[in-house]
Amino acid sequence: MTDEASPRVRAALPRGLVDRAPADIAAAEAMMVKIRAVYELYGFEAVETPFIEYTEALGKFLPDQDRPNEGVFSFKDDDEQWLSLRYDLTAPLARYVAERYEKLPKPYRSYRAGWVFRNEKPGPGRYRQFMQFDADTVGSATPAADAEICMMAADCLEALGIRRSDYVIKVNNRKVLDGVMEAIGLGGAENAARRLTVLRAIDKLDRLGPEGVRALLGAGRKDESGDFTKGAGLDAAAIERVLAYTAARAKDNAATLVALAAAVAGSPTGEAGVEDLREIAGLARAVGYGEDRVLLDPSVVRGLEYYTGPVFEAELTFETRGEDGKPIRFGSVGGGGRYDGLVARFRAEPVPATGFSIGISRLLAALRAIDSPIVAGAARPGPVVVVVLDRDRLADYQRLVATLRAAGIAAEMYLGASGLNAQLKYADRRGSLCAIIQGSNERDAPGGREVVIRDLRLGAELAKASKDRADYLELRQKAQFAVAEAAMVARVREIVARR
Amino acid sequence: MTDEASPRVRAALPRGLVDRAPADIAAAEAMMVKIRAVYELYGFEAVETPFIEYTEALGKFLPDQDRPNEGVFSFKDDDEQWLSLRYDLTAPLARYVAERYEKLPKPYRSYRAGWVFRNEKPGPGRYRQFMQFDADTVGSATPAADAEICMMAADCLEALGIRRSDYVIKVNNRKVLDGVMEAIGLGGAENAARRLTVLRAIDKLDRLGPEGVRALLGAGRKDESGDFTKGAGLDAAAIERVLAYTAARAKDNAATLVALAAAVAGSPTGEAGVEDLREIAGLARAVGYGEDRVLLDPSVVRGLEYYTGPVFEAELTFETRGEDGKPIRFGSVGGGGRYDGLVARFRAEPVPATGFSIGISRLLAALRAIDSPIVAGAARPGPVVVVVLDRDRLADYQRLVATLRAAGIAAEMYLGASGLNAQLKYADRRGSLCAIIQGSNERDAPGGREVVIRDLRLGAELAKASKDRADYLELRQKAQFAVAEAAMVARVREIVARR
Repeated sequence: MTDEASPRVRAALPRGLVDRAPADIAAAEAMMVKIRAVYELYGFEAVETPFIEYTEALGKFLPDQDRPNEGVFSFKDDDEQWLSLRYDLTAPLARYVAERYEKLPKPYRSYRAGWVFRNEKPGPGRYRQFMQFDADTVGSATPAADAEICMMAADCLEALGIRRSDYVIKVNNRKVLDGVMEAIGLGGAENAARRLTVLRAIDKLDRLGPEGVRALLGAGRKDESGDFTKGAGLDAAAIERVLAYTAARAKDNAATLVALAAAVAGSPTGEAGVEDLREIAGLARAVGYGEDRVLLDPSVVRGLEYYTGPVFEAELTFETRGEDGKPIRFGSVGGGGRYDGLVARFRAEPVPATGFSIGISRLLAALRAIDSPIVAGAARPGPVVVVVLDRDRLADYQRLVATLRAAGIAAEMYLGASGLNAQLKYADRRGSLCAIIQGSNERDAPGGREVVIRDLRLGAELAKASKDRADYLELRQKAQFAVAEAAMVARVREIVARR
Repeated sequence: MTDEASPRVRAALPRGLVDRAPADIAAAEAMMVKIRAVYELYGFEAVETPFIEYTEALGKFLPDQDRPNEGVFSFKDDDEQWLSLRYDLTAPLARYVAERYEKLPKPYRSYRAGWVFRNEKPGPGRYRQFMQFDADTVGSATPAADAEICMMAADCLEALGIRRSDYVIKVNNRKVLDGVMEAIGLGGAENAARRLTVLRAIDKLDRLGPEGVRALLGAGRKDESGDFTKGAGLDAAAIERVLAYTAARAKDNAATLVALAAAVAGSPTGEAGVEDLREIAGLARAVGYGEDRVLLDPSVVRGLEYYTGPVFEAELTFETRGEDGKPIRFGSVGGGGRYDGLVARFRAEPVPATGFSIGISRLLAALRAIDSPIVAGAARPGPVVVVVLDRDRLADYQRLVATLRAAGIAAEMYLGASGLNAQLKYADRRGSLCAIIQGSNERDAPGGREVVIRDLRLGAELAKASKDRADYLELRQKAQFAVAEAAMVARVREIVARR
């Protein structure tokens, strides 16, 4: 890069951060209206926490914290206490609930949408600021709460126009996994770190396949770039047992439960975990959510460390083609699970909790790919532009604008310094349906003041049309015509109604 | 405070940060819908920037930056570059526009709502995170753009239910002030710091009165706590000239313009500033916005340093009584102005711009005080609660819930561990309209499955009613009754419709 030694500031964003265009904002808003309606139908109510919390209150639960400030944006307050930007919406909710536990109705159901921040290496589709939309039930230990979360996640995706066969809510249970750990001698607090390594290895099954996971469970793995990731150091028998467990998914939930029961045989934790899954799948099936929607899948892990029981993953199963023609799978667009220990960090008594988080930005990309009407229909036409021909007549033009606005029609007076053609081009770029023009001819019209209305869409057609067309004159008359000022609103409404 | 030496994390927020309750979220959302509609009626389109920017891109424009990190939350990125949380929405917009200036239609009109952060000493009603809702026109130098912003601000307040006599949009011009500075010998770049001190002294007119400002323009001022603020060091004649200028507001805009013209006589900058104000007031009056709504007021300064021309302040003029009976004036609920130099920080050519920012949190408090229907009507009833009597019948209860939800009625199965009475109390606390109860009697009813529907509002009335009342039995029958499962949805709808 050449440095021009300019004193000027560079207009750029730090990497991993992006601006949002009007269509993105409207689409995300349309999505959130749909999701909010589902959450409220399920009895959840809105509550929000601020973006900044005490670092200690958020805790350290992010995966792969191998960078200096461990995935979180942090800074010191004036009183030398560490503050952080929230990295998810769950940790702040735990603080919120703990702070006013006595006052809240219990179980406490709440939802919130909000931006979260990760100080991670950005990549394609991976940002340092992104939006999540969460719902959580705090104070309920029953798997019925987990089952409900799964069904609600399915309902959200369908409310967004994703077809029943195009997604699945996968369910696993950390307790089942813990049972397998116990069985291979990795139980107990002293093995927590190694368990975590095993967990993260399993989490990469989708991306690396069984062979990659096998390496990560053993000595370690060198990736394509040559970087080496240290493994969990399990022996061959333990590795096979873990891999067999991850492959326990069978033709239906009932068969998976049989396979899982075998995998955890002898471990009370594991057996309790399988019972949870049996209850979740059973309750879901009772109201019509079979394994086509709520699917038991032992390969689901979830990266966050605070999960203690059932974990969920909302996965899109369809493929689309990218611009390069290559198939794209969107994969996970949300996830969650039970985090019974998170509120207890603040309080003496245990407080069970479960929740789900939808990744809005990721889901938006997926909805775009399937041309969902929810995100496609969000764009709106631009305002009517009142052209300025005589600069000493601004008050007249301002009156025309005020008349249109008073009628509920979005309108503006052109505020730049350019001439008629540039003004019409501006209106085109704004996506305006029509422009209003008033020069001295219109002002001094014998029958009283007039305006010229130019239908910009028809005007564009006209510009392309052959003058030999039979209806050319008719088209020209419709594309631009003079009317009395008093008729302006009615004629503009006609043009708006045509589009 | 007693320290229990507990290893537990304290559940608390850093000072100056607050959680948002459901009613606050709904009220702010209702406000933003109204404001957005006005902004769009004026031809502005949504665009958003992220929360984090390069510190350098945001610049240093906050007033009173006498604390270590100067009012802004800042932290270093991995590449050692300083990042900051945005302190307003204007500085990021300038970066946004500069980055894609060629591609944008010009003038560029956009709006955005968003949280901003100030690392300042919090106080009553003064938070370190708060929401603003801005609209800006970039690329237009004409005072018509400023006039439009003022009218739009007025329309926003009226759309929010604030009556015409209860607010005013005050307008001043930095150029007029610069003219006064020139006249007292404070022109030129070498006097920038002293001009700023004068500006800030004037800004305190409302709070300190003319005597306090007189002290700040001279040697300095000691406040009630004994803290001394150094003054601008003007001589007596200069002080009187500045104070005379701040008192130039006359009985109407025309008279104010006469007084201002006298105050800046001989200063070309000042005279140009008065012309701007004349055009703004004239255009506003032409479409019916007289000084009852758009009022020229030389005492308006605005704290932010980036303003270069007209500045605006939206002020609520009514008084309410606080809980202690003392009168409360809400004062400023928004402001803005012309910032012709902000985009130019990034670019070679000058880019004029003007905008306005509504303080959502502050305005919400004011709307609450006048019982605005926009914020009051935002609360909604809670979900129908399906009581759980027999824990081995969860699937049955889940089916009842699913039936209600399928009918579009917000509903939930009770997910806690308590008995019937506690469950009904829970439903009350959620603000539910009714509860659904099904025990073995209902399940085994001779005519087929039934449910008991309990109207919780009527139930509360019944509990308070005398048993001697003529209609007591009728009331009791209406407050709780058994119906066939198939009739549940219809009867629940009746109860919902009654409220």
